[in-house]
Amino acid sequence: MSRVFNFYAGPATLPLPVLERAQAEFVEYRGIGMSLIETSHRSAEYDEVHNGAVQGIRELLTVPDGYSILLVGGGATLQFSMVPMNILPEGAACDFLVTGSWGKKALADTRAYGRVNVLFDGADHAYTTLPEASAVRSTPGAAYLHLTSNETIGGVQYHRWPTVEAPIVADMSSDILSRPIPTESFGLIYAGAQKNLGPAGVTIVIVRDDLVERSPDSLGAYLSYKTHAKKNSLYNTPPVFSIYLVRLVLDWIRDQGGVPGIEARNTRKANKLYDAIDNAPGFFRCPVDGAARSHMNVVFRLPSEELEAQFVSAAKAEGMVGLKGHRDVGGIRASIYNAMPEEGVEALVAFMTEFVRTKG
Amino acid sequence: MSRVFNFYAGPATLPLPVLERAQAEFVEYRGIGMSLIETSHRSAEYDEVHNGAVQGIRELLTVPDGYSILLVGGGATLQFSMVPMNILPEGAACDFLVTGSWGKKALADTRAYGRVNVLFDGADHAYTTLPEASAVRSTPGAAYLHLTSNETIGGVQYHRWPTVEAPIVADMSSDILSRPIPTESFGLIYAGAQKNLGPAGVTIVIVRDDLVERSPDSLGAYLSYKTHAKKNSLYNTPPVFSIYLVRLVLDWIRDQGGVPGIEARNTRKANKLYDAIDNAPGFFRCPVDGAARSHMNVVFRLPSEELEAQFVSAAKAEGMVGLKGHRDVGGIRASIYNAMPEEGVEALVAFMTEFVRTKG
Repeated sequence: MSRVFNFYAGPATLPLPVLERAQAEFVEYRGIGMSLIETSHRSAEYDEVHNGAVQGIRELLTVPDGYSILLVGGGATLQFSMVPMNILPEGAACDFLVTGSWGKKALADTRAYGRVNVLFDGADHAYTTLPEASAVRSTPGAAYLHLTSNETIGGVQYHRWPTVEAPIVADMSSDILSRPIPTESFGLIYAGAQKNLGPAGVTIVIVRDDLVERSPDSLGAYLSYKTHAKKNSLYNTPPVFSIYLVRLVLDWIRDQGGVPGIEARNTRKANKLYDAIDNAPGFFRCPVDGAARSHMNVVFRLPSEELEAQFVSAAKAEGMVGLKGHRDVGGIRASIYNAMPEEGVEALVAFMTEFVRTKG
Repeated sequence: MSRVFNFYAGPATLPLPVLERAQAEFVEYRGIGMSLIETSHRSAEYDEVHNGAVQGIRELLTVPDGYSILLVGGGATLQFSMVPMNILPEGAACDFLVTGSWGKKALADTRAYGRVNVLFDGADHAYTTLPEASAVRSTPGAAYLHLTSNETIGGVQYHRWPTVEAPIVADMSSDILSRPIPTESFGLIYAGAQKNLGPAGVTIVIVRDDLVERSPDSLGAYLSYKTHAKKNSLYNTPPVFSIYLVRLVLDWIRDQGGVPGIEARNTRKANKLYDAIDNAPGFFRCPVDGAARSHMNVVFRLPSEELEAQFVSAAKAEGMVGLKGHRDVGGIRASIYNAMPEEGVEALVAFMTEFVRTKG
């Protein structure tokens, strides 16, 4: 087997030891005579997986008492609807900071359910910048303020959090568990698994209990946070395999020194890559504001689209895949989530240096 | 490894060759240097899986032109809400046949979104019976008629379909692909995967295009059938691994002689088990009406709860697990979905015969 360095934006690379463990126990799970995906979600074996995942998230993100941790299907895209359905009361408005394509999608769905004040929209700067955190003020009476902690297409990421009166709702799909966060400063955090947590198919929702209480009784069962909170996300059959992989990824994060250990490594990885860009200023160019540069999705341009296409295919030939930028913006994108090893970034940096030498 | 016979009601037993194939290619998928769950959902490799699953469903269920096949997260429980949100117009009413606990849950969620006429409710007979198919008439102007093709707790299953004016919406979660169906007689079919299709995490929705067109534009993107239909269920990241397993299960069904081959085997399995019950009338007793007996979930009672408990634990000791009836009704339940081998049923029948001999 020749494992490549996988720079896809999501679904994304996962830790090899996690994949190997899942493979080894896939057909017969720990002596129970069947696969975990064949066993009842009410069995002792699945119970241990489910509660281990919930508990792992609570510990690693230091989620305080007074918050529920939910495991929901449908992806972050379903949360774009569930958030306003549950916590935007009829007649109320919420605030939005729109810093890229995910924020735009969340905004569009929120408008289907209520009024929105857009406090910031990065469209005029092609989503290469963020609002100044200290300058953000929520609208008096706003039900919440929504932000996207990291935008995978534009490559912007908050490194300082706004402090506002309204509860902050954060879509952390693309950077959850990549660094410590002040969880108690958020009202609700949601994150699709397929970047830093595991395979597609499950979304984590961390929600303060007073916000759960806002859920109107008029919602269907699956769409109500109350249902999932009351039943520990076992009202219906959860996405067992995705949750099991999340559980294994959480164990792996512990082995890496927890979230602080992961953050230190992520910072080293990002610095190496941005240095390689900044050190060839006539050739590579990162369009993102210095203070807003993402440690998860590093985007950059070359002098021409032709050179960008050459870069992507030559990198692929050397075992580095998924470097083509999103079709909406073009260029190059290297997604370097938690599970991307430092060796992968080092290989990419070496490739970039050589590419400049021969083509620059 | 000692594989047990797994009679769980869901998640449920899967074909061993499917599990072995998934295990073998789990860490490195077909030479691409990564796992399938790590690759982009826009990659050629995933595209082949996704479209293979959709096409497999279309072929095996002979889905005519004019129907879309959607792959949605969240389970059938999310469909309990999405169906009325999409195809029950404001002010309209729909009809319901309530034949067990799944129908009751679907009914409760539907009532959150509109008016319902309950045409049949099996509660007075403890959900051991079905309405006479030929006697069912839909209410003039009803937006649709909802039924549950098989109820896993009560163990009842339609063997004749009603013919009514309104489009029929069927929850087939627990018997899809277990027998040929007249797909063109239904307006919408939905089925969570975790009985006959694969692991939990994906739900199949087969919907007639004129019903897709009913979706109001006021819905958030994920909740609208239009979104999934227009984007071939790739508007957002789909539950990749669950869909991949479904794809493998569909291939396995083809190897079994397609749905007719599966049906023949399912009928033999069910007949053997019901015969074993009926041949010990003073000891075993099936509470379900003869014409409504499920070929998927065979429920029966013993003379006492004490004997039932002994039966469950003695069977487990012989490698037959998951036979305890649902806590709401007690007794014994043997779930014998597509992937339960005939040998499993034969082993259970032999065990039952011996149990009667020693305890009867």
